[in-house]
Amino acid sequence: MTTSPRKVNLAEKFGLIEDAWNPRVAGDVNQFQVKLVKLRGSFVWHRHEAEDELFLVVAGRLRMRFRDRDEIVGPGEFIIVPHGVEHCPVADSDEVEVVLLEPATTLNTGDAEDPRRQPELERI
Amino acid sequence: MTTSPRKVNLAEKFGLIEDAWNPRVAGDVNQFQVKLVKLRGSFVWHRHEAEDELFLVVAGRLRMRFRDRDEIVGPGEFIIVPHGVEHCPVADSDEVEVVLLEPATTLNTGDAEDPRRQPELERI
Repeated sequence: MTTSPRKVNLAEKFGLIEDAWNPRVAGDVNQFQVKLVKLRGSFVWHRHEAEDELFLVVAGRLRMRFRDRDEIVGPGEFIIVPHGVEHCPVADSDEVEVVLLEPATTLNTGDAEDPRRQPELERI
Repeated sequence: MTTSPRKVNLAEKFGLIEDAWNPRVAGDVNQFQVKLVKLRGSFVWHRHEAEDELFLVVAGRLRMRFRDRDEIVGPGEFIIVPHGVEHCPVADSDEVEVVLLEPATTLNTGDAEDPRRQPELERI
């Protein structure tokens, strides 16, 4: 018999994360994953060829930069970046806690070369 | 040129929803959808043959019933119900606001016959 699933508390999980720009996998939903990531400072401009990417802000303020404008995303707000669209996530507060919902295949740095690329994600 | 995307404010969107058990589509992430739904009272026991289903609670308290136990899910918590697992969502407070993340093909009532079945979802 399948064991019934347990809930996940976001604050508890974010409390376990110290480093920034290193997404942790907190759950699988078919071929999608829930990833938790802390942001500090600026990331790198990139795009994902095939994957759309949802950013839900839990704490802090995210500045999502696009080539034509910026969008500020606060707690209780989300933004979906369609595949192919260049974007650069920036922490607009000291630290931002973000829930990502995206295909499991999504590489954090997309098409960009960056030392923060994380090809293998830990589970949390 | 693609227009850069706008954010979605969850509280604002939930303020537009009056009826319970009628999910609205708030965004598309590849073949997945973000759906916003208010719960009141008890739903119906059902399962989804192929689709996993993530319930993220924004307000109120969700009691997710399984055949072996219940799990209480509060604000800032989520639970993923794997495909094939029987479940019955129940509002454990007067009203619960839930963000669903699931394949777009997911039917709210799964394999159950219920008048609250919503084969066509509105967008919000």
